[in-house]
Amino acid sequence: MAANFASDNVGAAAPAIVAAIGEAAAATAMPYGADPWTERAAARLRDIFETDLAVFPVVTGTAANALALAALTPPWGAVYCHPRSHVMEDECGAPEFYSGGARLVGVGGDHAKIDAAAFAAALPDARPHGVHNMRPAALTLTQATEAGTVYSVDAIAELAAIARRFGMAVHMDGARFTNALVGLNVSPADLSWRAGVDVLSLGATKNGALAAEAVIFFDPARAAEFAERRKRGGHLLSKARFVGAQLDAWLADDLWRANARAANRAAGRLAAGLADVPAAMLEHPVEANIVFVSLPGAAVAALEGDGFGFYRAGSAAGGRQVIRLVASWASTDAEVDAFVAAAARHAA
Amino acid sequence: MAANFASDNVGAAAPAIVAAIGEAAAATAMPYGADPWTERAAARLRDIFETDLAVFPVVTGTAANALALAALTPPWGAVYCHPRSHVMEDECGAPEFYSGGARLVGVGGDHAKIDAAAFAAALPDARPHGVHNMRPAALTLTQATEAGTVYSVDAIAELAAIARRFGMAVHMDGARFTNALVGLNVSPADLSWRAGVDVLSLGATKNGALAAEAVIFFDPARAAEFAERRKRGGHLLSKARFVGAQLDAWLADDLWRANARAANRAAGRLAAGLADVPAAMLEHPVEANIVFVSLPGAAVAALEGDGFGFYRAGSAAGGRQVIRLVASWASTDAEVDAFVAAAARHAA
Amino acid sequence: MAANFASDNVGAAAPAIVAAIGEAAAATAMPYGADPWTERAAARLRDIFETDLAVFPVVTGTAANALALAALTPPWGAVYCHPRSHVMEDECGAPEFYSGGARLVGVGGDHAKIDAAAFAAALPDARPHGVHNMRPAALTLTQATEAGTVYSVDAIAELAAIARRFGMAVHMDGARFTNALVGLNVSPADLSWRAGVDVLSLGATKNGALAAEAVIFFDPARAAEFAERRKRGGHLLSKARFVGAQLDAWLADDLWRANARAANRAAGRLAAGLADVPAAMLEHPVEANIVFVSLPGAAVAALEGDGFGFYRAGSAAGGRQVIRLVASWASTDAEVDAFVAAAARHAA
Amino acid sequence: MAANFASDNVGAAAPAIVAAIGEAAAATAMPYGADPWTERAAARLRDIFETDLAVFPVVTGTAANALALAALTPPWGAVYCHPRSHVMEDECGAPEFYSGGARLVGVGGDHAKIDAAAFAAALPDARPHGVHNMRPAALTLTQATEAGTVYSVDAIAELAAIARRFGMAVHMDGARFTNALVGLNVSPADLSWRAGVDVLSLGATKNGALAAEAVIFFDPARAAEFAERRKRGGHLLSKARFVGAQLDAWLADDLWRANARAANRAAGRLAAGLADVPAAMLEHPVEANIVFVSLPGAAVAALEGDGFGFYRAGSAAGGRQVIRLVASWASTDAEVDAFVAAAARHAA
Repeated sequence: MAANFASDNVGAAAPAIVAAIGEAAAATAMPYGADPWTERAAARLRDIFETDLAVFPVVTGTAANALALAALTPPWGAVYCHPRSHVMEDECGAPEFYSGGARLVGVGGDHAKIDAAAFAAALPDARPHGVHNMRPAALTLTQATEAGTVYSVDAIAELAAIARRFGMAVHMDGARFTNALVGLNVSPADLSWRAGVDVLSLGATKNGALAAEAVIFFDPARAAEFAERRKRGGHLLSKARFVGAQLDAWLADDLWRANARAANRAAGRLAAGLADVPAAMLEHPVEANIVFVSLPGAAVAALEGDGFGFYRAGSAAGGRQVIRLVASWASTDAEVDAFVAAAARHAA
Repeated sequence: MAANFASDNVGAAAPAIVAAIGEAAAATAMPYGADPWTERAAARLRDIFETDLAVFPVVTGTAANALALAALTPPWGAVYCHPRSHVMEDECGAPEFYSGGARLVGVGGDHAKIDAAAFAAALPDARPHGVHNMRPAALTLTQATEAGTVYSVDAIAELAAIARRFGMAVHMDGARFTNALVGLNVSPADLSWRAGVDVLSLGATKNGALAAEAVIFFDPARAAEFAERRKRGGHLLSKARFVGAQLDAWLADDLWRANARAANRAAGRLAAGLADVPAAMLEHPVEANIVFVSLPGAAVAALEGDGFGFYRAGSAAGGRQVIRLVASWASTDAEVDAFVAAAARHAA
Repeated sequence: MAANFASDNVGAAAPAIVAAIGEAAAATAMPYGADPWTERAAARLRDIFETDLAVFPVVTGTAANALALAALTPPWGAVYCHPRSHVMEDECGAPEFYSGGARLVGVGGDHAKIDAAAFAAALPDARPHGVHNMRPAALTLTQATEAGTVYSVDAIAELAAIARRFGMAVHMDGARFTNALVGLNVSPADLSWRAGVDVLSLGATKNGALAAEAVIFFDPARAAEFAERRKRGGHLLSKARFVGAQLDAWLADDLWRANARAANRAAGRLAAGLADVPAAMLEHPVEANIVFVSLPGAAVAALEGDGFGFYRAGSAAGGRQVIRLVASWASTDAEVDAFVAAAARHAA
Repeated sequence: MAANFASDNVGAAAPAIVAAIGEAAAATAMPYGADPWTERAAARLRDIFETDLAVFPVVTGTAANALALAALTPPWGAVYCHPRSHVMEDECGAPEFYSGGARLVGVGGDHAKIDAAAFAAALPDARPHGVHNMRPAALTLTQATEAGTVYSVDAIAELAAIARRFGMAVHMDGARFTNALVGLNVSPADLSWRAGVDVLSLGATKNGALAAEAVIFFDPARAAEFAERRKRGGHLLSKARFVGAQLDAWLADDLWRANARAANRAAGRLAAGLADVPAAMLEHPVEANIVFVSLPGAAVAALEGDGFGFYRAGSAAGGRQVIRLVASWASTDAEVDAFVAAAARHAA
């Protein structure tokens, strides 16, 4: 069967995580998070992030983001994000729903990263009419971005400092945080709270887990009543050990970083291979596990015909088609090489 | 270790379900429900309920109930329920949240069942001032109830007919639907849509699964835009096969009914044993897998001291304490007998 | 034409208020409350209530109550009120809407007044399951009540102290605050903040104004972002001087108290007259400007036939009908006497 | 005193409207819109718009817009508007609040008018991921625009046809509808429902009334439960005759058009005068009662020093400042000429 690069959510869960789920499923434990797996995962996170923190496991990235943002903005607040971010494009209004009507305000920038100058320019005049305007309340950064690019520590710090200057909180959508982390080779603390991030949606689902995300508050005081938010959103699992066990196994033995490294390496191999295909043109720097490449339309259709899995991501000039390829922890060199060879053949 | 009767959500998942999760977790499949497990579970439900239907898996009963009710009431609607129902007492306002502000209106009745006469009496005068009053929009019945009792098919039909007469939809919170089903020994169709139920929250989590509930619309037309509701609630899992696989295994080989029968049988054995303890007094008929019993306060404390798991459920006259015992598919005769013996000893 | 006792909102606005509206309407002034009338009304309120306060004029009592409660409860909070209160019975879910899904919890008591013992008993066990239960957040008292009765200063203080003990805020729906005030002959401060009220919806509409209510925060710090709440509810008028002028004229020259005294006096005269009608039976003590009386059904129909305005308020034993009569500042002795005479004649 | 061109909401109400308010205020009438003024205003609107319609008076434009849009979109819907529209810039999130979390999506175009080609281009790809994306639900057009420009009948029809093609409803924010109407010299029906508008927020407040807006549904069937929406928003006035009387007087004797003509004429005179000032530069065509003009910064400061009322609307190149001038029905030639003369003097 041809490889599936449609998303990092199509693949298998990592064996260690599958095993942990099985173990937890077969056990008896108190419900709602008062179980050893959940507690162990929280302890690991405190250790890894080198700080006290409050952690709330949930099962989807949309829930993690929407709940986190709702804790950072009043219903009349504005949340600044990139126009191509997941919260803007792929959550069917979950942030608006959970926040009670806050507004997402797009701030552009190349390669799906918010431009600091544009962000800084937008804020001084954000409330020309005071109470008639929504109040800038939070900034949310996607790390790695939807384009597969990565904010540097300095870039995050710069954006967070601007947000702070205007009294805004900073959220990070880290559905692919680990991919950024291993790409930058920095510490989790440096890439989050030390750079100014208040709340992190840390995603395991796209990186080897089955359904596990952790909302992490670096200042536990900000998490007051977050438990109520999660519960009334229907996101407090009774057999919460199911999520705790995934996070625990994912963080143990550095599995999370190993998985991300494997995915990034596969994406890098894809990019390198496609760079040698004359008709292929990379759309963005490949800094995590995602590759956007444009190819002649006929080549794209032929690759689909071969059974390769990927998403079309828009038309480009000259009848070309942009496609998105996402590598996962389980992508193999053989899969990558087969795709590159097919692309080269069809685009010749 | 002493037995844990705290809830049917503390126990292990059934082995067949654990195996199915493992199989699905290790597979590659398209996300968001377009996977073979989810499709097979839906087909099973259509077969079991002998009708076409639309099914939406989610991971918690609170999400199932709140999403279902939100589809049946406008934000200015009133949803009639028993004051002791889960939606009223245990969901931290999730129905209000998902519906955008609808109101739960309690209608009493013995043993946690809504009294039909009281319900009928409440409706004719529900809107004395028209637009100033919330509109009766839905009735929700809990089957089996929080007290461990069961509505008969006729009782459901009577309540549903009243609701229908006033233009209201009917929802059933079936977190323990299977326990009621096997207790009554009727068909799933008779106990739901044929009796007038429009939407059923069918729970597997308390009955052998890990985290799996199905929102079932017996009239698929009513489910228009339910997919959007679920998505923006953050309840559409990417690796949705995780829930589909649980439902599939739970419904296969009649496992769902076998599990419920085992739980009911254990509860019946608990009730029979306690009936022989002079100081114990059963609070409700035991018709599913839950036993409410009052005991002298000192006996309750001693049972807690023994390490048995259960919840205190209120004080009774004469220094007595009501406790709740919930049996699960995995409760053993030995566990039951040990508890009864300890209760007899402490209450002697 | 026969007198209209349907409500204190059917009558004319007081001449001084009509004149003030006309004056303000014909003027030019800065919008959104930065006008001299609004500022003067606020100064009067600070003087009358003998404290600093933040005041937000709006045009309906429903808006005043719903906005005020929303400022006092999180979306997962519970607001305790009497089952017969306006927020529960006559606002079509506005409190739920503005609060984002908070729940109204009814606490009974005679004559539409919350029973302190019942309230105190409800709270210790309000959250047996913590995050699964909504959090008691606010108490709202209606003064005067929907039954035309009045809470004494001591009764308010007792209820407020209970609320405070459980960390709850206290709101007063004062649509008829002035009627209670003049009936009790106490100071506005004693009847509100000194007794423990945090936020007061002070109504002028039913007491001689056209459409004017003031949301008053006795602790201005609690009013943070209330301006945003009001604006996004669409309740910030551009020509806000229209409301400010009404409040200003209403508070000037003690008009508010004079109007309330006139209304209460008319209600007292109604009650006294009806007390002499053998077939008439008063339902509640008459302590403000509302009279509930039961009469033989035929007499009620005959009074309707005469053209008198009033609402039917439920059936009573023996074919009797309860009706509600509301006197206004403009009710005359002649109107009252004509009604009493007709009632005596029809009920003879 | 120097003239105030800050907004058309700073001025006096028209004498006929003031008189009508006074008359209604002094009368006795049934509450909640069952009064002769409200009924007469509705009849006038049916006559003027040459069709059956459902009309709901409210007191602010923000309420009118937010309530109307909420009736046209589900909470997971997208409402397309111009980035400079009132709903986007001046309502503090009221559309998001009333709709339960729908999203405003900006579509640009010159002079604050939505560009039809841009709108058409945005829709085919609005839901690339189906349920993951918000559903395009409504288009809202501001007539006249915030820039003082006007959509032609053909332009509205073109935009409405595009919306229709994608299953979207069409709303018009007509806070200054009358100014556009008299500028185009077409019929109200042609400028609204015949061009494809489903719901119109018709504003009287900025055009001679005190606080009166009418939400008009040209298809009354779409208005089902709008009464509940309005009530639970706190926008159903008890003494609703106050709003009905304003609308009635405003529509009588063609006062609404006369007022708009006067305002437009004053704006035209301002524009013509300023066109002769060499240092002044008009920013937009002047098609209604609003003039945007840029002047040297020092001249703007000097005009402020003179006491003229207007808003600064942004900086322009070369130290210039854009200001907004709004003429009202009451603006006089003398006021206009004095402003122009001062501008000429300060900018010389």
